[in-house]
Amino acid sequence: MTDLKNIKAFVFDIDGVFTNSGILCDLDGELFRTYNVKDTFAIRMAVMQGYKVGIITGGVSASIPARFRSCGVPLDDVYLGSRAKVEELENFCNKHSLSPEDVMFIGDDLPDIGPLMECGIGLCPADAVEEVKEASDIVSEKNGGCGCVRNAVEMVMRAQGKWNFDAQAYKARF
Amino acid sequence: MTDLKNIKAFVFDIDGVFTNSGILCDLDGELFRTYNVKDTFAIRMAVMQGYKVGIITGGVSASIPARFRSCGVPLDDVYLGSRAKVEELENFCNKHSLSPEDVMFIGDDLPDIGPLMECGIGLCPADAVEEVKEASDIVSEKNGGCGCVRNAVEMVMRAQGKWNFDAQAYKARF
Amino acid sequence: MTDLKNIKAFVFDIDGVFTNSGILCDLDGELFRTYNVKDTFAIRMAVMQGYKVGIITGGVSASIPARFRSCGVPLDDVYLGSRAKVEELENFCNKHSLSPEDVMFIGDDLPDIGPLMECGIGLCPADAVEEVKEASDIVSEKNGGCGCVRNAVEMVMRAQGKWNFDAQAYKARF
Amino acid sequence: MTDLKNIKAFVFDIDGVFTNSGILCDLDGELFRTYNVKDTFAIRMAVMQGYKVGIITGGVSASIPARFRSCGVPLDDVYLGSRAKVEELENFCNKHSLSPEDVMFIGDDLPDIGPLMECGIGLCPADAVEEVKEASDIVSEKNGGCGCVRNAVEMVMRAQGKWNFDAQAYKARF
Repeated sequence: MTDLKNIKAFVFDIDGVFTNSGILCDLDGELFRTYNVKDTFAIRMAVMQGYKVGIITGGVSASIPARFRSCGVPLDDVYLGSRAKVEELENFCNKHSLSPEDVMFIGDDLPDIGPLMECGIGLCPADAVEEVKEASDIVSEKNGGCGCVRNAVEMVMRAQGKWNFDAQAYKARF
Repeated sequence: MTDLKNIKAFVFDIDGVFTNSGILCDLDGELFRTYNVKDTFAIRMAVMQGYKVGIITGGVSASIPARFRSCGVPLDDVYLGSRAKVEELENFCNKHSLSPEDVMFIGDDLPDIGPLMECGIGLCPADAVEEVKEASDIVSEKNGGCGCVRNAVEMVMRAQGKWNFDAQAYKARF
Repeated sequence: MTDLKNIKAFVFDIDGVFTNSGILCDLDGELFRTYNVKDTFAIRMAVMQGYKVGIITGGVSASIPARFRSCGVPLDDVYLGSRAKVEELENFCNKHSLSPEDVMFIGDDLPDIGPLMECGIGLCPADAVEEVKEASDIVSEKNGGCGCVRNAVEMVMRAQGKWNFDAQAYKARF
Repeated sequence: MTDLKNIKAFVFDIDGVFTNSGILCDLDGELFRTYNVKDTFAIRMAVMQGYKVGIITGGVSASIPARFRSCGVPLDDVYLGSRAKVEELENFCNKHSLSPEDVMFIGDDLPDIGPLMECGIGLCPADAVEEVKEASDIVSEKNGGCGCVRNAVEMVMRAQGKWNFDAQAYKARF
C-alpha cells in the first residue's frame, strides 16, 4: 500500500460509493442517482489542490458527467459503461502520466476488485460486499452515499496538509 | 423445502423486495421505484449462469420491464399487474418446463404467501410482514431494498459453486 | 377513546404519516411524495371491507388524489390545501353520516391536534412531534412512512376480525 | 453567544441542513432536493411571528426559491450560488437593519464556518462536519433533513413564548 502522503489522484466507482446503491428508474429505464453534497464538496477541494480525479462506472447516464463536470472533473476523465475497470484505470493513468501506485481507488462491489488491488491504495465503504472489504487496504468507517468519499479524500489531503478551505479561492474556481 | 443446490430459477415480487417499499408518485399517479445496484448486479450474475428469473408484481409501470430488461430478464418473464400471483407463477413454470419445486420465490406481503408456500424455497426480507415471515422457509438477514435480493441469489449460487465474477464474460453479455 | 371494535372510518393526514416527512421539490415548486406500498395495501384492504377512508392534507399536489384513487379512495374524500382540519373532518363525517366518534384520525404535527382530539381514536406515528403524542390516544410503534398507516389499519381490522386477504376478491376490486 | 430570547432572524444553509445532504441529479445536471415538512412548517411559524428568514446556499436551482416562497420567504432573501457566505449574510443584515448578533445561523459544512462564527448564535445539525461542530455555539440533537431546522426554530420561539399554533391565523397567512 502506498503511503497516504504519496497519493496524487483519486479514481472512484459511483454506485455504492457516491450513493447508497439506490437508483431511481424512470419510464424509459433511465437511472437517476442521489449524490451527497459533502462528498461532492470534497471532490471540488481535491480538484482545487491539483489532484487528478477519475470516475469509472458501469452506468451510462448523461447525468453522471453533468454531475461531475460541476465539480471540476473533465468529461474525458469520466468513464461510462465500463465493463472491465482495470482497462479504464490504465487509460486514466497513461493520460495523466501516473502510475497506479499514485492512485487511491474507491469501489464497493465485485467489478471493483481488479482496480482496488492494482492501485496504490484500495479503499471501500463500510457497507461494501465482503470480497471487496478483503481486497481493500482501507475500509472506511462511512457507508456509500453517507460520506465515504469525503472520508477518503480528507484522509489523503489531511495527510498531505492540504485540507484547508479558502473561500476566495473556492469562489474563483467554482 | 428444496435443497439450495437444486434451485434452477428465481421469481421475485418487486415492492418491499427490490425496494424498501417506497414508491415516488408523480402528478399522473405514475409510480417510480428506487432499486439497489447490488441487487440488480446479482440478477445479472444469475442470468449469466443460466438461471431463469421471473418478476411477478402488482405494479404496472413501464419502468419495471425497462429496469429488468437491462439486467437480462426477458419482457415476457415480467408479469405486471398481477392480482393472483400463483397463476403467474404457474405460467412462468410451464413456459420454462420448471416445477415450482425448482424455484426460489422472494416476497414480502400478503399477496406473496401463495407463491411463497408453493415454491421449492420461499424467502422473505427481514422486514416482511409477520404472516409472510411465518410462511417463508428462509428469512433473509437483509431488508427489502437493502440487499435481500443479493443475499438470496448469492445463497443459491454459492451453494452451487457458481458465484464467480468473470469481468470478460460480464463484458460480453451486458 | 372509542373501542377499536367500533371504528367505522379512517381519516389520515399525509406528510409525516404516509411519508417520512420528506418532499421532493421540482423546478416549479411542485412537491412529490414517496409512499409506502405496505401502507397503501392496507388502504385497499380497508376499502374492500367497507371502511370509509378520508385524506385531509395541507398539500395541494395533483399527485395526491392520483395516488389515493388507485387505492379506492374517491376524489371527494381527499381534502387538499386544508388549513383548518376540523372543518374538513366534520364535512367528511356529515357526508358519510358518521360521528367523529366512529373515526380513527392519524396525524403527526400541530395542525392535526384538533382532529386527533375530536375523533374517536387519535393515533400518531412514533416520530410525531411531542405535542401530538400527548394529544393522541395511541402512539404507533412505527414511524411515518415506515408502516404507521399499516399498523393503524391492521389494529382496527384485526380487532374486528376483518384483516383477511382474499386474492380473488382483491383481483375483482382492484 | 446571543441569548435565545434576543434572536430576531434566522439564516440557513440548505444542503445538509434542510436536507440529509442528498441531491438527486437529472440528465442536465439539475439538482433536486428533498425537504422535511416538519422543518418547512417551522419556517412558516417563524414568518407568521415576524422573524426575518434568509437562505444562503451554494446551490443555484430554481427549485430553491420556489420551495421557500411557499413558506413565506421573499425571493430577495434567498441567496443562490453563494461562494462567500459572510458577504451575503452582511447584505441580509443591512437590508433588514439587523446586526449579525440578532441572527441565528444554521450550517453544516466548511463554507458555513464564517457566518456561524459571525452570527449571534451558530447552530449546526448533529451530523455536521467536525470543524463546524467546533465552530458552533449549539449542536442540534437532530441531523440535517431530520428536524434540525424545526429544532432550531422551536428553540428560539419557545424561549420567546412564541411557539403557539393558531389554525385560523395560519389559514389567513398561507
